[in-house]
Amino acid sequence: MNKREALQIVKKQLPEARYLHTYRVMETAIILARRFNVNEKKAELAAIFHDYAKNHSKDEMKKHIVDQNMSPLLLQFHPELWHAPVGAFLVEQQFDIKDPNILNAIRFHTTGRMNMTKLEKVIFLADYIEPGRKFPGVKEVRAKAEVDLDKALFQSLKNTIAFLLEKNQTIFPDTFKAYNGLLGIKGVDRVDE
Amino acid sequence: MNKREALQIVKKQLPEARYLHTYRVMETAIILARRFNVNEKKAELAAIFHDYAKNHSKDEMKKHIVDQNMSPLLLQFHPELWHAPVGAFLVEQQFDIKDPNILNAIRFHTTGRMNMTKLEKVIFLADYIEPGRKFPGVKEVRAKAEVDLDKALFQSLKNTIAFLLEKNQTIFPDTFKAYNGLLGIKGVDRVDE
Repeated sequence: MNKREALQIVKKQLPEARYLHTYRVMETAIILARRFNVNEKKAELAAIFHDYAKNHSKDEMKKHIVDQNMSPLLLQFHPELWHAPVGAFLVEQQFDIKDPNILNAIRFHTTGRMNMTKLEKVIFLADYIEPGRKFPGVKEVRAKAEVDLDKALFQSLKNTIAFLLEKNQTIFPDTFKAYNGLLGIKGVDRVDE
Repeated sequence: MNKREALQIVKKQLPEARYLHTYRVMETAIILARRFNVNEKKAELAAIFHDYAKNHSKDEMKKHIVDQNMSPLLLQFHPELWHAPVGAFLVEQQFDIKDPNILNAIRFHTTGRMNMTKLEKVIFLADYIEPGRKFPGVKEVRAKAEVDLDKALFQSLKNTIAFLLEKNQTIFPDTFKAYNGLLGIKGVDRVDE
């Protein structure tokens, strides 16, 4: 699927502000992909579709999580997290996008996870630092993203965890596994939700 | 085992400063146990033995972790965490202490875990707030511990996670799970290290 077609699809799915965010994530992802030797076309496509399910209703997302046998843990956490795995599922189902790396970049763009691919890191980070983002600490992450993908990712994960702690909100396990993973933790070889 | 015998045993195991800390944890644990309707004698015994393995060498602790088939994840994390599960094992093995609630209070006193018993919470908290502790945020936790065990525990877990984040240190999954658990997350019913 080319860029124009993909943008037309998500434009119909998203309110204008969300579409403009998506466009900025795409531009940022392309810059990061060039900088860190990641396939640009994959980064472009993953970025365009990263929020594909963002405007779906909670009930609809919940139905997909249950029907598709996604982690039951998701439903215990904030619905804000649901659009990422649901988006990955819908994009694979509805369009001719089968590349697992693109789908995982969409699936883990909100939580991160242990052992992310470079493409997953680029999409997570592009979503975090696109020029419309104003939250505290984003400038520091942007500066790190000029030079080091992992250092920028680590800082964004730190900020995210600290923000959630400050608000007394739950923290999805994949997020702290992503954090621990960048400090050298490998996890254990068993089901680990 | 009575209090005097137990104290004599740990006095031989620990440097003086650590023994004095243990004594203060015991006194604090007894106060918390009375306040929150926890068995005082169990709290006393768990507190006395909570740092039993603190002065063991890394190699010795590592040997027990491997030989006793404890979570392989432990060895990827800071050795500071090892003395708690190793202590629980040694106390069960060497003395006539078989009560799983006492042993788990020793085992999880450093990391916490999801769904802690009240005794586990009392020991975790006593270790955090005993009068010798001076770290930032401890006064706030002490104030909460005057009235609400879970709120005090939650605050201590928040402080611990924030401290480790600040230092760019790894955070053991049980600590996050304890935090998430107090916010209503139940986890999933499968192997979950």
